[in-house]
Amino acid sequence: MTIKRKKITVVGAGFTGATTAFMLAQQELGDVVLVDIPQLESPTKGKALDMMESMPVQGADANIVGTASYDDTRGSDVVIITAGIARKPGMSRDDLVNTNASIVKSVCEQVKQTSPDAYVILLSNPVDAMTYVAYETLGFPKHRVIGQSGVLDTARYCTFIAEELNVSVEDVRGFVLGGHGDDMVPLVRYSNVGGIPIDKLIARDRIEAIVQRTRTGGGEIVGLLGNGSAYYAPAASLVQMTEAILKDKKRILPVIALLEGEYGYHNLFMGVPAILGGGGIERVFELELTESERTALDKSAESVRSVIQVITG
Amino acid sequence: MTIKRKKITVVGAGFTGATTAFMLAQQELGDVVLVDIPQLESPTKGKALDMMESMPVQGADANIVGTASYDDTRGSDVVIITAGIARKPGMSRDDLVNTNASIVKSVCEQVKQTSPDAYVILLSNPVDAMTYVAYETLGFPKHRVIGQSGVLDTARYCTFIAEELNVSVEDVRGFVLGGHGDDMVPLVRYSNVGGIPIDKLIARDRIEAIVQRTRTGGGEIVGLLGNGSAYYAPAASLVQMTEAILKDKKRILPVIALLEGEYGYHNLFMGVPAILGGGGIERVFELELTESERTALDKSAESVRSVIQVITG
Amino acid sequence: MTIKRKKITVVGAGFTGATTAFMLAQQELGDVVLVDIPQLESPTKGKALDMMESMPVQGADANIVGTASYDDTRGSDVVIITAGIARKPGMSRDDLVNTNASIVKSVCEQVKQTSPDAYVILLSNPVDAMTYVAYETLGFPKHRVIGQSGVLDTARYCTFIAEELNVSVEDVRGFVLGGHGDDMVPLVRYSNVGGIPIDKLIARDRIEAIVQRTRTGGGEIVGLLGNGSAYYAPAASLVQMTEAILKDKKRILPVIALLEGEYGYHNLFMGVPAILGGGGIERVFELELTESERTALDKSAESVRSVIQVITG
Amino acid sequence: MTIKRKKITVVGAGFTGATTAFMLAQQELGDVVLVDIPQLESPTKGKALDMMESMPVQGADANIVGTASYDDTRGSDVVIITAGIARKPGMSRDDLVNTNASIVKSVCEQVKQTSPDAYVILLSNPVDAMTYVAYETLGFPKHRVIGQSGVLDTARYCTFIAEELNVSVEDVRGFVLGGHGDDMVPLVRYSNVGGIPIDKLIARDRIEAIVQRTRTGGGEIVGLLGNGSAYYAPAASLVQMTEAILKDKKRILPVIALLEGEYGYHNLFMGVPAILGGGGIERVFELELTESERTALDKSAESVRSVIQVITG
Repeated sequence: MTIKRKKITVVGAGFTGATTAFMLAQQELGDVVLVDIPQLESPTKGKALDMMESMPVQGADANIVGTASYDDTRGSDVVIITAGIARKPGMSRDDLVNTNASIVKSVCEQVKQTSPDAYVILLSNPVDAMTYVAYETLGFPKHRVIGQSGVLDTARYCTFIAEELNVSVEDVRGFVLGGHGDDMVPLVRYSNVGGIPIDKLIARDRIEAIVQRTRTGGGEIVGLLGNGSAYYAPAASLVQMTEAILKDKKRILPVIALLEGEYGYHNLFMGVPAILGGGGIERVFELELTESERTALDKSAESVRSVIQVITG
Repeated sequence: MTIKRKKITVVGAGFTGATTAFMLAQQELGDVVLVDIPQLESPTKGKALDMMESMPVQGADANIVGTASYDDTRGSDVVIITAGIARKPGMSRDDLVNTNASIVKSVCEQVKQTSPDAYVILLSNPVDAMTYVAYETLGFPKHRVIGQSGVLDTARYCTFIAEELNVSVEDVRGFVLGGHGDDMVPLVRYSNVGGIPIDKLIARDRIEAIVQRTRTGGGEIVGLLGNGSAYYAPAASLVQMTEAILKDKKRILPVIALLEGEYGYHNLFMGVPAILGGGGIERVFELELTESERTALDKSAESVRSVIQVITG
Repeated sequence: MTIKRKKITVVGAGFTGATTAFMLAQQELGDVVLVDIPQLESPTKGKALDMMESMPVQGADANIVGTASYDDTRGSDVVIITAGIARKPGMSRDDLVNTNASIVKSVCEQVKQTSPDAYVILLSNPVDAMTYVAYETLGFPKHRVIGQSGVLDTARYCTFIAEELNVSVEDVRGFVLGGHGDDMVPLVRYSNVGGIPIDKLIARDRIEAIVQRTRTGGGEIVGLLGNGSAYYAPAASLVQMTEAILKDKKRILPVIALLEGEYGYHNLFMGVPAILGGGGIERVFELELTESERTALDKSAESVRSVIQVITG
Repeated sequence: MTIKRKKITVVGAGFTGATTAFMLAQQELGDVVLVDIPQLESPTKGKALDMMESMPVQGADANIVGTASYDDTRGSDVVIITAGIARKPGMSRDDLVNTNASIVKSVCEQVKQTSPDAYVILLSNPVDAMTYVAYETLGFPKHRVIGQSGVLDTARYCTFIAEELNVSVEDVRGFVLGGHGDDMVPLVRYSNVGGIPIDKLIARDRIEAIVQRTRTGGGEIVGLLGNGSAYYAPAASLVQMTEAILKDKKRILPVIALLEGEYGYHNLFMGVPAILGGGGIERVFELELTESERTALDKSAESVRSVIQVITG
């Protein structure tokens, strides 16, 4: 009846995956396995070792292993998938979708074998579609296959609101539905600062500017970095979702969940507010929408479906 | 140009004061001085020493001093006043008010001499009136004299909502105006769970039961304990307010502030939402009220005034 | 395959038990059940509720239940026993020992039924003997029955050393063997500050004064408080031990363990350095002792045996 | 008398600098300015913005600004310098030294103007020499110019010891003197696990293997990564030192300090154990050395001097 630490696998040892592994270990959420392809085995081991060597200074106990073998991930409680390529100049959207679908499929076939009881969180892009691919490949129940997009979108939205009002980020609550980025559907009336709806505090045109900046928040970072995309905020988002599950916190977070009738959609993975706890997605909240919100959400759903079409042909 | 730790004084070494001192040290918010009357000097020193002896285990660096001398509190950045007696059987409200007013006045005369630049947070009961007494005695600008009641009321309210829905306390946001306890004015439309207004999630009668339980939350604890009143949640509330100031967090918290025209009141200390940061009360939020909210707030204001009458005769 | 929070029971809702429950919840180590006798059911519930109401402010998710029924403790991962009376004026040592042995026996009979897989940590006094009583009553394997004394003694010792040198408590490492208080055997050569043995930094007579103060550290607090004994540092010590087990940290801590040949003792519970992890006491370190250390340890062992004699008659 | 957050500047927005900035913000140690050269202004801003957008998720309040202008760093309390190039294939050691000396000189000229009261921590390589260059350029008193090498070496050493014994990193205490890497002088007798000297627990040849691995620990990571060097553990080390100063913790850490007679050296920057607190380097501990330790330290000192020779010609 020995008490074991939780085990968390992070697939993909790029910036996001590595930063995620680091933050999981900082918080002592469990032992971490960072896995990437055989060609990257050596740098993956290097990153894991470097992180391990920071642990005595941080006073945190967590093993961090870098590997190219899924054997080392066996029996994970949570698997986070960050693998996939970024869109390169000249690459069509369809090529990107098919390449990443193939990567996610390959990863999930191995996860299915090695961690059949895991909760699986997807970040790979385009994430709504990749969560669908993972779900199909894994054959896990829907509450154990979860996509990340809304936590990150909300984090950006809240950052901009906090900056606008010069208040603590702890008191800003954003609220988004639907897809990532352009397809994001912010519910302004449910966004508040210390409980006060933001439209009581911020002028309408400033709110619209903030919403627009949030929609293109990923692109803003890509444009600034020049070479690469955001990883700190995406990693923090993945860690928050993992913590919610491993500590059974029952957080209310926007997650990409399989909808089977909710909001009138069927067999579609889309961003909705849900309770995330020790049972994964424990409840999806279905909200009444205004007409314009409904229209935006339908557009978002259509966008997800068109990407799925690419994959399933 | 040596960097010094912040200095925090807690006046009153009873359960609330002691628990507050302990939590301040846990969070390394600064060095702590716990001060009580000369007759209690020895147990005050005992509590401080016991706390100090827990610090190596907790890995936190903070000096905690127990004393009966205000000399030891000199130059504090924040002073928290928990001193005062509880109402005893047979004691009239007016006797309680006058006794505590006298205690708070005596404390503040010493604080004025020893820590003229401090931010002062009041907990002593009845707290709206005691904040007024402190303000009058200290002669400090209004942004540096702050009463606690709403953080605690909100904490209780959020506890009951989280329990009702079985969700994380991190995602519940309550909102109250006005006085403590019976005079509390909850703004249900500004209370939310993950951004979703609670009246979308909880039936009206259950909300009313929760509001009512919150109003009498202090009495519920008194009744259960049989001998004494709540101290864990009050202490946590004081620590949160202190942290907001010392880290200049600009939290949005309900605080008891001097109103000079806000909400139509003048020269009255009452609970309102405000930004609490490195400048103390940096901004009071003035919200539009419904008619019933306005009526309740007026009643709350009247109640505060009637207590002040007792003191100023 | 839902992920559940750990469950921790604290027996005894006095100052130490309550403070322990509070700190366990602060650290989100699991859900906490605070249990006391039926006559104290109401205040036990009151303390638990007050703690719960502090959680929204602290942003920590943990249920805290106050109860008089062991049914509510069922299936605990760790059980911490703080129950027992303090020595009253005029009470003989033997009366104290027999009263507390009877209390611990009664508690353990219920723990055995309700949490047969738990790790059990004892604080009740005299703790070496009470750990023996618990072990006999529970019938659990020895690695799951653990007494606390050395973590607290070491914490006090480190506090005094840090104060003497005006250095961070994070860099002080004390080391004690043997019994609690008077019977404590400090290993000065293994006590260090930032790795530097303390006898290179502190004069011999000052070290002796510190050792002596540590031996009587419990009495010093009792003397100051006038009415009651230490609880902050004891609670922190219990929490550290619980964390080591629940997070499988494999800390090296002084614990009261059953010795079966180690240090030449048989069938004796005594304070020794050990690895505390997910398997409870995973390894006892056996150190070479100097002649004077051996003599002191023998004396400590003799003292433990004489108390056991009282119980077993 | 408004309370302001501390201000920390990180010079160099490469992996180490960026990771340092991120961890400083996580811990709410202050507002952070990340500064790099004008050609890298855009990615520096991108990294800072990405970090900011993670703060709502982490619940931490800290502004993080990316810039190419030292105006934005004005009035920093601590300045951390990570700027400098890595040695490239075919580059002589002297070329590296002179290039980085020139970079550090240029940085320090600006720091001297904009943050004349700052504590300055150096990481740029070769760090002993670069700390000397900074000291000469800044003209600050010696307690405010501090080099990092020993915290990182010790962290690696402790990682390997903890792994060897399978114990918590919280209980391992390493101890090193002298230069970085090859010139490191480990004091095995002052290295301990839970207070127990490691030579009581680990065989001599295993200790030697661990020491040797530590010496080449930086190279091990470089070799694994293939392209780049360690940054997680170096960043954590810088953050620990910054925390010690800003919280006036009086930690005992190995730091690169100006020696003026200590250990028999004059006008030499070298790694020694010191108290790091609100006054920067508050005390250097001078330890008695064995003959072999003295020989190794002399060799380390000689190595530092030879690098300085390169710079001063």
